[in-house]
Amino acid sequence: MKIDLNSDLGESLGAWRMGDDHAMLSIVSSANVACGFHAGDAAGILRTLRQAAERGVAVGAHVAYPDLVGFGRRQMDVASADLQADVIYQIGALKGLAAVAGTSVRYVKPHGALYNTIAHDKRQAHDVIAAIRAIDPSLVLVGLAGSPLLGWAQASGLSTVAEAFADRAYMPDGSLVSRREKGSVLHDAQDVAERMLRLATEGVVTAVDGSIVRLKADSVCVHGDSPGAVEMARQVRALLERSGVKVAPFVDMGVVP
Amino acid sequence: MKIDLNSDLGESLGAWRMGDDHAMLSIVSSANVACGFHAGDAAGILRTLRQAAERGVAVGAHVAYPDLVGFGRRQMDVASADLQADVIYQIGALKGLAAVAGTSVRYVKPHGALYNTIAHDKRQAHDVIAAIRAIDPSLVLVGLAGSPLLGWAQASGLSTVAEAFADRAYMPDGSLVSRREKGSVLHDAQDVAERMLRLATEGVVTAVDGSIVRLKADSVCVHGDSPGAVEMARQVRALLERSGVKVAPFVDMGVVP
Amino acid sequence: MKIDLNSDLGESLGAWRMGDDHAMLSIVSSANVACGFHAGDAAGILRTLRQAAERGVAVGAHVAYPDLVGFGRRQMDVASADLQADVIYQIGALKGLAAVAGTSVRYVKPHGALYNTIAHDKRQAHDVIAAIRAIDPSLVLVGLAGSPLLGWAQASGLSTVAEAFADRAYMPDGSLVSRREKGSVLHDAQDVAERMLRLATEGVVTAVDGSIVRLKADSVCVHGDSPGAVEMARQVRALLERSGVKVAPFVDMGVVP
Amino acid sequence: MKIDLNSDLGESLGAWRMGDDHAMLSIVSSANVACGFHAGDAAGILRTLRQAAERGVAVGAHVAYPDLVGFGRRQMDVASADLQADVIYQIGALKGLAAVAGTSVRYVKPHGALYNTIAHDKRQAHDVIAAIRAIDPSLVLVGLAGSPLLGWAQASGLSTVAEAFADRAYMPDGSLVSRREKGSVLHDAQDVAERMLRLATEGVVTAVDGSIVRLKADSVCVHGDSPGAVEMARQVRALLERSGVKVAPFVDMGVVP
Repeated sequence: MKIDLNSDLGESLGAWRMGDDHAMLSIVSSANVACGFHAGDAAGILRTLRQAAERGVAVGAHVAYPDLVGFGRRQMDVASADLQADVIYQIGALKGLAAVAGTSVRYVKPHGALYNTIAHDKRQAHDVIAAIRAIDPSLVLVGLAGSPLLGWAQASGLSTVAEAFADRAYMPDGSLVSRREKGSVLHDAQDVAERMLRLATEGVVTAVDGSIVRLKADSVCVHGDSPGAVEMARQVRALLERSGVKVAPFVDMGVVP
Repeated sequence: MKIDLNSDLGESLGAWRMGDDHAMLSIVSSANVACGFHAGDAAGILRTLRQAAERGVAVGAHVAYPDLVGFGRRQMDVASADLQADVIYQIGALKGLAAVAGTSVRYVKPHGALYNTIAHDKRQAHDVIAAIRAIDPSLVLVGLAGSPLLGWAQASGLSTVAEAFADRAYMPDGSLVSRREKGSVLHDAQDVAERMLRLATEGVVTAVDGSIVRLKADSVCVHGDSPGAVEMARQVRALLERSGVKVAPFVDMGVVP
Repeated sequence: MKIDLNSDLGESLGAWRMGDDHAMLSIVSSANVACGFHAGDAAGILRTLRQAAERGVAVGAHVAYPDLVGFGRRQMDVASADLQADVIYQIGALKGLAAVAGTSVRYVKPHGALYNTIAHDKRQAHDVIAAIRAIDPSLVLVGLAGSPLLGWAQASGLSTVAEAFADRAYMPDGSLVSRREKGSVLHDAQDVAERMLRLATEGVVTAVDGSIVRLKADSVCVHGDSPGAVEMARQVRALLERSGVKVAPFVDMGVVP
Repeated sequence: MKIDLNSDLGESLGAWRMGDDHAMLSIVSSANVACGFHAGDAAGILRTLRQAAERGVAVGAHVAYPDLVGFGRRQMDVASADLQADVIYQIGALKGLAAVAGTSVRYVKPHGALYNTIAHDKRQAHDVIAAIRAIDPSLVLVGLAGSPLLGWAQASGLSTVAEAFADRAYMPDGSLVSRREKGSVLHDAQDVAERMLRLATEGVVTAVDGSIVRLKADSVCVHGDSPGAVEMARQVRALLERSGVKVAPFVDMGVVP
């Protein structure tokens, strides 16, 4: 049994630090690397890519809306021509840096508000899909497990990978509990690790109401933006490995349809 | 006899227009396309690249300091790690957009203050050279004719092309008359066209003091940021062609050492 | 009889020009001056403010979402704490520049997507209202004639002025025809001038279906972003004055409740 | 005996944290608050200003070059019209936020590369001086002790305060040891506290060669960008107070000429 662990990296900006990329690159198998639109300056991105290359961690483009102050978390109504070109620009920039770092961009995981929007907004979803297909149709799109995005992308000829979130609570229908609700974010590292083990081995997760939800996910997102988050990610990996689940990049697993 | 005409394009930004890319792409053989640091949003850059591809105009990356408000014209003391990564990022982004537009990036021409600085500043020059070699050593570096930059780049293994400026006055030693001096910029289109014809056919230009200066330049920069500038560029090309000088991209000419 | 003509000015950015502020300042009585978030660099804003001061044109803060590439025209979901502080920051910056230019900020007219959003979105509307009241409750808020925004602002203790658009078609209910519809923007300068004369003298405008709509507006927005737009604005003012309607800043008219 | 302790605050940016403003506001008497050009988003600046107001800490405008990625630490050749307007814009924005926070801007301390440049560059120094005088001639300019800037500002009619740096080594002539030299930054909190006590009480500091240098400084800059820095600042204040030196804002001390 295998599963991929991914995390958002390369999100420092000039003098501002965010997360502990060095630590996370010893835990995850896939790195969603910022492309400069919501976070990341070129030199910092390059440093993270070099470390990812050394560790054999797969690299994905963490494309976003152009919004540094809002960290790409604010919904923006970007026109199709702009959104497509912005996504191509970001992937191209990261491909350039990745080549210099001795690695390559293997997948695309949209960030923040763009991630949430394209999970259900067909127009913006198709803009992102078109952009990826235009620059490199071999790139895999990582999207929310259970969202219509994955079907749209597959119908357009893109490979996709469904993603679950280690520290998020789920509704009985397999959607995420909104961050505005109490209990939407889980804080107990042991509990989270056990949930992800069950997801990896049985393909289910326990929802907020106690019901058991089937969830097809080949990659699990873990966070690294605080010491507690890094420790939680470490425990998730440790329990998976102790239990015989191999943690490896999904791009090397043949999980992609 | 052949010469290349190049111009700075793709410099609009969102709602702000700059220059007449459509007109200039019927005049020049090489397009220095903005990469988003001094000018250019992704969608506008892509439009210009598509037009360049249709016209068979060669594309170069017009990399710059990160300074939209100053249009990349302000000297900045950028550290080596940042400058190298910034140049790689910009070239990568343009490569991505160019591929989608059905063309490719063939050369790099630094812009504005970066152009002027690396003409003589060895540290920043070597940062730009290292960045180009790291991402794609087949890219040609366009630099100021007669500047030490060209020698440094060649010694590092990069191909180079020397550039002259159609509308600029020259000193007897082959350097440009500073923009702060009166008469540094030429305004008579007929005069400019004749100067460039002589440069293309005899390899000389008349300096401000009337002396004749030998100038080895395989590409001539013409501007398109005003109707007058477009008309001047048109006259330069027309006179060259009437006189039997072929205008063609330097990257197709084999002029590169 | 009196009316105010306002226009969006100070929207150049560094090397990029937008509009003809000099020409428009001889036509309008109120200048909505960009504050740097959607357009305007500090030096350019200061130049426009100095010209407005010379001409006796009233100055308003044209506050916007932080989005240069989108020119503030893209809807953004900005949180209340950010939106309030952003509005205060912009008004403060313009107050500083205005004082140096020998004038002062008298009103606030939100720009683009922010203007459209707060016309009906109560949360963002109240954020803008709270910001204005916090920095200077004597500032007048300019908003879309007929929109709930005006009532919300008045209930909060702000003075308001209702605005009509010279070159826009109106629905029978007094709302604007969407820009996505054909015929939403009017191009005949003579027709536009006559419509605005009737608005100023009779308080009515002819809707797209030919019906007559009552419209209470003390300020009329005219554009200056093309030579045609400047000429239309000139004709609007000329017809108003020939017909005995005085064009003067609303802030000097006592029209504010 | 009295002295002022100042620190650079408000330097977070959106999701990125920098320093511990809350802790530092219980240590310093003056807060140099970022204005958005090198650091600081409006909402974060406002939070810091509110805390400064509660604590009775004096507020200054920490104006900078427009360079977020470089944190304002990169020398930029900004033209006079731009530099003057940029400084006015930043002070105006901070004045607006400060008024809302129930405090006011009392002084200006340029940041980073701008601070270092105007210490000796007469052109840029006079641009900053002219900007301050234009928007509010009652603002005090804080500059490097011993630098020509202070004399230029006084000759122009501005009040000035000379500043020393707690954790920096000094040359025998009273200038700072360059950051490029070993030993330029001091790390022993006890040693630093004793140096600052001697500066406050005797007006001298021991230089790197062991010689005693007279240094006239009415404000001492302490840093808060790491837990160690905060602790050092705390020790400096504690030793000063134990030794009978009152720590108070220079703007309340009458130290200004």
